[in-house]
Amino acid sequence: MSIEDVSKEGTWFIEYNTPFSYHVRGIKRVLYSGVTKYQRIAVVEFEDIGRALILDGKTQSTLYDEFIYHESLVHPAMITHPNPRKVLILGGGEGATAREVLRHKTVSEVTMVDIDDEVIKVSKEYLPEMSQGAFDDPRLKLVIGDGRKFIEESRDKYDVIILDLTDPLEGGPSYLLYTVEFYTAIKNRLNDDGIIVTQATSTFYALRTFATIHRTIAAVFPIARAYHVYVPSFDSTWGFVIGSLTHDPITLTPEEVDSRIRSRINGELRFYEGAMHRVIFTLPRHIRAVLEDKTIKPATDNNPTFLPA
Amino acid sequence: MSIEDVSKEGTWFIEYNTPFSYHVRGIKRVLYSGVTKYQRIAVVEFEDIGRALILDGKTQSTLYDEFIYHESLVHPAMITHPNPRKVLILGGGEGATAREVLRHKTVSEVTMVDIDDEVIKVSKEYLPEMSQGAFDDPRLKLVIGDGRKFIEESRDKYDVIILDLTDPLEGGPSYLLYTVEFYTAIKNRLNDDGIIVTQATSTFYALRTFATIHRTIAAVFPIARAYHVYVPSFDSTWGFVIGSLTHDPITLTPEEVDSRIRSRINGELRFYEGAMHRVIFTLPRHIRAVLEDKTIKPATDNNPTFLPA
Amino acid sequence: MSIEDVSKEGTWFIEYNTPFSYHVRGIKRVLYSGVTKYQRIAVVEFEDIGRALILDGKTQSTLYDEFIYHESLVHPAMITHPNPRKVLILGGGEGATAREVLRHKTVSEVTMVDIDDEVIKVSKEYLPEMSQGAFDDPRLKLVIGDGRKFIEESRDKYDVIILDLTDPLEGGPSYLLYTVEFYTAIKNRLNDDGIIVTQATSTFYALRTFATIHRTIAAVFPIARAYHVYVPSFDSTWGFVIGSLTHDPITLTPEEVDSRIRSRINGELRFYEGAMHRVIFTLPRHIRAVLEDKTIKPATDNNPTFLPA
Amino acid sequence: MSIEDVSKEGTWFIEYNTPFSYHVRGIKRVLYSGVTKYQRIAVVEFEDIGRALILDGKTQSTLYDEFIYHESLVHPAMITHPNPRKVLILGGGEGATAREVLRHKTVSEVTMVDIDDEVIKVSKEYLPEMSQGAFDDPRLKLVIGDGRKFIEESRDKYDVIILDLTDPLEGGPSYLLYTVEFYTAIKNRLNDDGIIVTQATSTFYALRTFATIHRTIAAVFPIARAYHVYVPSFDSTWGFVIGSLTHDPITLTPEEVDSRIRSRINGELRFYEGAMHRVIFTLPRHIRAVLEDKTIKPATDNNPTFLPA
Repeated sequence: MSIEDVSKEGTWFIEYNTPFSYHVRGIKRVLYSGVTKYQRIAVVEFEDIGRALILDGKTQSTLYDEFIYHESLVHPAMITHPNPRKVLILGGGEGATAREVLRHKTVSEVTMVDIDDEVIKVSKEYLPEMSQGAFDDPRLKLVIGDGRKFIEESRDKYDVIILDLTDPLEGGPSYLLYTVEFYTAIKNRLNDDGIIVTQATSTFYALRTFATIHRTIAAVFPIARAYHVYVPSFDSTWGFVIGSLTHDPITLTPEEVDSRIRSRINGELRFYEGAMHRVIFTLPRHIRAVLEDKTIKPATDNNPTFLPA
Repeated sequence: MSIEDVSKEGTWFIEYNTPFSYHVRGIKRVLYSGVTKYQRIAVVEFEDIGRALILDGKTQSTLYDEFIYHESLVHPAMITHPNPRKVLILGGGEGATAREVLRHKTVSEVTMVDIDDEVIKVSKEYLPEMSQGAFDDPRLKLVIGDGRKFIEESRDKYDVIILDLTDPLEGGPSYLLYTVEFYTAIKNRLNDDGIIVTQATSTFYALRTFATIHRTIAAVFPIARAYHVYVPSFDSTWGFVIGSLTHDPITLTPEEVDSRIRSRINGELRFYEGAMHRVIFTLPRHIRAVLEDKTIKPATDNNPTFLPA
Repeated sequence: MSIEDVSKEGTWFIEYNTPFSYHVRGIKRVLYSGVTKYQRIAVVEFEDIGRALILDGKTQSTLYDEFIYHESLVHPAMITHPNPRKVLILGGGEGATAREVLRHKTVSEVTMVDIDDEVIKVSKEYLPEMSQGAFDDPRLKLVIGDGRKFIEESRDKYDVIILDLTDPLEGGPSYLLYTVEFYTAIKNRLNDDGIIVTQATSTFYALRTFATIHRTIAAVFPIARAYHVYVPSFDSTWGFVIGSLTHDPITLTPEEVDSRIRSRINGELRFYEGAMHRVIFTLPRHIRAVLEDKTIKPATDNNPTFLPA
Repeated sequence: MSIEDVSKEGTWFIEYNTPFSYHVRGIKRVLYSGVTKYQRIAVVEFEDIGRALILDGKTQSTLYDEFIYHESLVHPAMITHPNPRKVLILGGGEGATAREVLRHKTVSEVTMVDIDDEVIKVSKEYLPEMSQGAFDDPRLKLVIGDGRKFIEESRDKYDVIILDLTDPLEGGPSYLLYTVEFYTAIKNRLNDDGIIVTQATSTFYALRTFATIHRTIAAVFPIARAYHVYVPSFDSTWGFVIGSLTHDPITLTPEEVDSRIRSRINGELRFYEGAMHRVIFTLPRHIRAVLEDKTIKPATDNNPTFLPA
């Protein structure tokens, strides 16, 4: 089947942020659409912001601005760690998270666990810019399987664990990957000065979910730091939370960050840098107020947090 | 590429009727999308009304209700003619118009002229229910080429000529196929008791265009009869106009129509029948008023009619 | 508050036909919006089709085409009856149904029962073209109250009863006005040769609901006749069902209908006429097939029919 | 007219960011809509983000997040100036910009020039939270008139001039308020150490327009500094540019900013603070790259910059 322009035929992608708010984007081409055992996958080319991976109707990443999301997910934790050698990624099927991790010269081994090998196959074929050869790097060990099960059965230890998961949707595959129980299991897989980071949903549309993830990580880790960046294709500022055993990202000066980038990262970054490290950890008052709200409780397997529908 | 569900990922088809009115339909699957030398083609499966052919962003026909459109286009003219043997179809790439013509036992030869063989190829592959083998019928002669040029150069004569064309859009490929000059050329290709019929756009959203097509055919043919049917997937009642040299469709009683159907048409019809023949030629007052509006002039090559954008 | 153009500010009205199909219309002005004890009311001016009454998010009637709906609701039953003098209307708050009934010279008394006097007040102020003075006609008796209660408690008898009700939505105020029990109570309020008529939802989007209403009336009345017309602002053909004790609408010839119109109706009609009477009772095969479907059962208070959401 | 819920009736607000991207928000109530000599005004209550002022179809500010926009517009320039006493505001009809300026204890006189007194009247009635009494402050001098004309004819001098204008839309009222000629006239109305600030459109959807405004101010002022904040209701990060004769905002430390806030601003801020001052002036690489693009030229009266439609 040839892959061609359908946009002016009036094919649009509608993505709800809340029941009363949605964004509509013109689709230029549908490059791929399919259903796996776990989810629906589509690769579309938007008129304005280029090719994108969509899972279960949610935009995961676009060529236009995936660098903002992936650099912000990976580098703050990796740079905060003094010498990250063994890294574990859960999720991240498009390969861009692995790509960013593998740029670190310190890294000797990356294990990536994704439940759905179809996402990886489709991304390699239709979005090769995402992985840029990461799947062929000899340091990468790819495991197809359930992330939580892997964590619970593994005996290995890691310096950095990166959780690049889909949002905690009610009935979705990921909501048990944002709980005290899960983070405790994760902590057990860290070396003594290990660090984890997770994507943590929208700090506008899902601010209380973001705050709950922060609260949950703070219940398990001695150091928990929330940060956020504006990701245009997500139509919002997007949150992340770092959990750390000894190293605290906010003690790094911009100069230290830039120095570590220079000595440890191959190639040139497009978003992350020393000054930006400081910026993203500086949350505005109205977000801090929710992070400090005493009524927000850690999420547990029995009482998980969900993204507002 | 596998063909799978994308609808719940939020892919919708938006079709404007006017600048201030549009219809939105959930897409279950995009089966095909491509661009030919002449137009954009898509075959989608709608959630509610099944598979559909879309050309340049306009729904052409759907499996759900194409029988209403195609039976209404073909049979009133064919049944009005006492013995249609040679039939010419301009357009009709999905093959459903040919399918309906070939059901007439009187027919010995059908020439179908379509400019775009890609439409035919795609329809045969993704919408085989449309043609139901019509393209393999030995009576069908398929010509890939420009309809107007064919008409102007042909020396053949036909009993019935069926114009199954796209709407007269400004800048589109079809607006010169709705003019006095074109209908005159068409008339020259008819036998002495020949009949033509054309689709004639929406009798709600484009009522003056419909009336202009009627006025244009009335300027060329001694008998001109407008009729319309409700086609759900077109979101409107849809118009047709018959131009005839001697036979008048409205003189047929329902009983005569049913008798001709029984003796001349193979298989069972799903929409057209004697009672319906009378219904579709009975236009409501407010439509008749526009048909009789003296300010409406025949369309000419220099002063064509266009569908409101 | 002044009433002004808001349309280009991007205010649009979205009305769903089904979960996968909706129509969007540009709003020029919001003339009124409010909430009564029973429902939400809005009067808007659409860009394309003018002022409209909207109840609970459903377009009830527009100045553009209300004549099609109201003439089709009122006149077939009224003309079928040989001498309608006493008429009962349930619903019809905008006053257009009463307006059409009062045009009949035979009518000496019209009782109109509507639960919501706010709808009447708003319609008189913002849509005076609907009632055209009907509320001031000395023959009109207006009762504010529950239609079903009125029917069950009334001792009066009527020649024609017209049910101009909102659709049978689950949880809405009207779904118990489409049941065997209700039609039986209605029948008890008819004179010996009385006739009722009800609106009966879309014959495209809600075809089985339409068929169920027909089946329900056929379970109560010796004569039950379904018919439909295309109403542009409803985006569909719209159904009606007549229940009759002795007179059968389909036995009237177009000539008889035209003759009764001439002698009995004041002013000029815009849609209904003898030829159209015959047209609207002629349903296409695929609709007849559903009307005849043996699996469709009459609706009862315990097992009502609902419009698909 | 009562003001009531219309949202569930399906009234939605559609705002385009680009021809292929738009946001849709549910409207709970339309509180006001009208047309002035200059523009269309609406005050609506959105389901998710509360009451909002809409001019010519563009959301100007919402109660939900106007504090982010207005604090970011006003305070960086005011705090950078050592002792702002006389302040001029062009635009800002809802009164929130004046409100923030008047919180500064140093301020003895604020002149606000808005072309459209209807915007002010409507905002005072339907959005009193915006001005919070600012229009009654004896230090405020309100001038109804054209901003550019006022600047060109005035002989007064100001410490800070704040340009709270609508976007430079082609054919709109504001595009000549973003040119070298206009900024030169503005500069002539500044005291020797004066500062100006203007809103500067979206740094995502209109990045080149933002960069052009920065380039234009840099052509007129010795110091030009661009900054941006994420404004949820604008669906984007939003840009601002400061032009300054002697004081440079980026030389202030967070501690100095916080100290000036404490000594000079009444009441508590909700967004702006020392740390945030530093954050907003830190633009990401991909935005800096466009700001430094040599092909971007200053806008002039003859060659103005426009917002992409």
